[in-house]
Amino acid sequence: MITLGVLGAGQLGRMLALAGIPLGMRFRFYDPLADPPASAVGEHTRASWDDHAALLAWADSVDVITYESETVPLTVVRGLMDRRPVRPGSDALRIGGDRLLEKEFLSGLGIPVAPFASVENLDELASALKRLGTPSILKTRGGGYDGRGQVSIADPANSAAAWDALGAVPATLERRVEFQRELAIVAVRGLNRRIITYPLTETRHESGILVSAVAPAPRMSEALQHSAASIAAHVLEALDHIGVLAIECFEVDGHLVVNEFAPRVHNSGHWTIEGAVTSQFENHVRAIAGLPLGSTDCLGHCGLVNLLGEIPALSQVLALPWAHLHVYGKASRPGRKVGHVTVLANDPHMLSERMQHVINLTRSNADSIQGSLS
Amino acid sequence: MITLGVLGAGQLGRMLALAGIPLGMRFRFYDPLADPPASAVGEHTRASWDDHAALLAWADSVDVITYESETVPLTVVRGLMDRRPVRPGSDALRIGGDRLLEKEFLSGLGIPVAPFASVENLDELASALKRLGTPSILKTRGGGYDGRGQVSIADPANSAAAWDALGAVPATLERRVEFQRELAIVAVRGLNRRIITYPLTETRHESGILVSAVAPAPRMSEALQHSAASIAAHVLEALDHIGVLAIECFEVDGHLVVNEFAPRVHNSGHWTIEGAVTSQFENHVRAIAGLPLGSTDCLGHCGLVNLLGEIPALSQVLALPWAHLHVYGKASRPGRKVGHVTVLANDPHMLSERMQHVINLTRSNADSIQGSLS
Repeated sequence: MITLGVLGAGQLGRMLALAGIPLGMRFRFYDPLADPPASAVGEHTRASWDDHAALLAWADSVDVITYESETVPLTVVRGLMDRRPVRPGSDALRIGGDRLLEKEFLSGLGIPVAPFASVENLDELASALKRLGTPSILKTRGGGYDGRGQVSIADPANSAAAWDALGAVPATLERRVEFQRELAIVAVRGLNRRIITYPLTETRHESGILVSAVAPAPRMSEALQHSAASIAAHVLEALDHIGVLAIECFEVDGHLVVNEFAPRVHNSGHWTIEGAVTSQFENHVRAIAGLPLGSTDCLGHCGLVNLLGEIPALSQVLALPWAHLHVYGKASRPGRKVGHVTVLANDPHMLSERMQHVINLTRSNADSIQGSLS
Repeated sequence: MITLGVLGAGQLGRMLALAGIPLGMRFRFYDPLADPPASAVGEHTRASWDDHAALLAWADSVDVITYESETVPLTVVRGLMDRRPVRPGSDALRIGGDRLLEKEFLSGLGIPVAPFASVENLDELASALKRLGTPSILKTRGGGYDGRGQVSIADPANSAAAWDALGAVPATLERRVEFQRELAIVAVRGLNRRIITYPLTETRHESGILVSAVAPAPRMSEALQHSAASIAAHVLEALDHIGVLAIECFEVDGHLVVNEFAPRVHNSGHWTIEGAVTSQFENHVRAIAGLPLGSTDCLGHCGLVNLLGEIPALSQVLALPWAHLHVYGKASRPGRKVGHVTVLANDPHMLSERMQHVINLTRSNADSIQGSLS
């Protein structure tokens, strides 16, 4: 029986274990937080990221190590690599966790990205703004997810305020992309180097947080899917990546411009639990365990609606015969991803109606709570 | 967050938790055995069935109690019923765990069963054999599962040997039913008394152990499905049962004769994890938690192949794009249920070919190990 060690024990770790346990795997998680979502499905070592003894003892108790978040310190991954296989490796984490390295890496591969510049101080910001123009977005190099660590600059006169708002830390300036829609592709590379991809997924964000996704992306040409798969393969091979990787893109006049990648299972692929033959979670654990990858075929038209802040009444969601509920076991907090609902349908129109139904449920719930507080 | 307490921590408990955790439920198991399959997905209290203090402390730590096996002592369930809701109740366990009571209960409801008689001693066995004729089957009243606790009697001259073979314990004699095939139906009754059923499943046994199942059962008339659903509803209501219940039947000239029922999720329904919109496991936890039941609709043609004794090479099973592997985390032992494979297909012929492929894999594996030992 193989034991997988997961650095981080959030909802991604939880869903990895729910997929891997039926394959006979055991899970051990390492996370500084108390009572994390994944503690329900494996042993949880609670210790800080700089507790070397705890990290080594934990590593010795597992067969293969993976990470479920870019917030895991790079030094932790590097410190464990000569102890156990860490898949994917440290490169994916180093580059994926730094917006400047990421953009340099992607553009170095010839993959289209938004015009960008490194910004280390206010002077560099001024000259970058002159070069790239506005509107642009100033983003911290590290620590950015769910819309954090970024601020828009519509007018160069506001550059000092933006610089201060981000905390005067090393950053990138990126020209805002005028896009028609946002798309994401989830791909997986096996230990035998085989690469397969899920269908392109259309994503919708609000305040930088993913709120819903539809797969396969509506009105998608074969050329677009092919282009996304080819970009994904390029990135996976350049990183010598093992496991799942997700790439977030903009569609601009029928072409893809890459925004960023995540070296892990990704929110835009949560629909695969019920909507694909093999979920992204199962394929990630298969890949890092050196097992054959499973089919990424899609079962009809799929969507997901994120549950943000709080879980609506269970009975309302479970009464919908075409919906599948996923609760992460996290405390409620405004805007926090606490669960998602997968929606399945036979055609895009029905899917859209059903997703709207779920969105209304989550909103009416928020409204009624707001109402009861006022 | 609701905490479900499960008496018993085998593979059924494990699969209940894998279905309930995504709904936000937590699981606590009570089982005298060390390192049981369900310990991967919840807290495991290891204590004996007669440790009253441990049982009460455990019960106080959960919201609702269920059991995953008829081997849980009736006294345990009865002792906890005034502490926490136990669903299903003790009647289902008392009757389902005693072959004589079960047959009396079923025939009392007017449900067709094989001719049977209570047998307390050798004299009663002789007179029962005279009345029922041969071939008949002598079965212990309690403790029977997977073909244990029963012996065939083809000739009344062998009755003493049969009686001794079973250990001279209270038994039933049942006339052997000449059937065309074996069928099972899984049904679930919600806390609101709503009843829904899965499609009839054709099952195949070897030496009393379920080896494979196909759903919906091939060549099934609407009348047969209706008859099975009506029998299930009858049983569920008579027991005031909450949760899943499975009924095993014989098909005899187009009619159903009931063999036995199990007051729990059942091996014949394991295909529902991937093959139905909502699995039997999810519907059981929904029912006992008072949540709406989910659709029992079937997704195409489904089958399951039990993995008996040992797990074949993971890579061989996972290379099959239409197969889903379920490993229970149990040690290998000849004939033991250690996992199952769900097989999906678009038509019955393809399903049959694919199931044969999996069966061959499990056999060639057993052969090659046999070969390497000889």
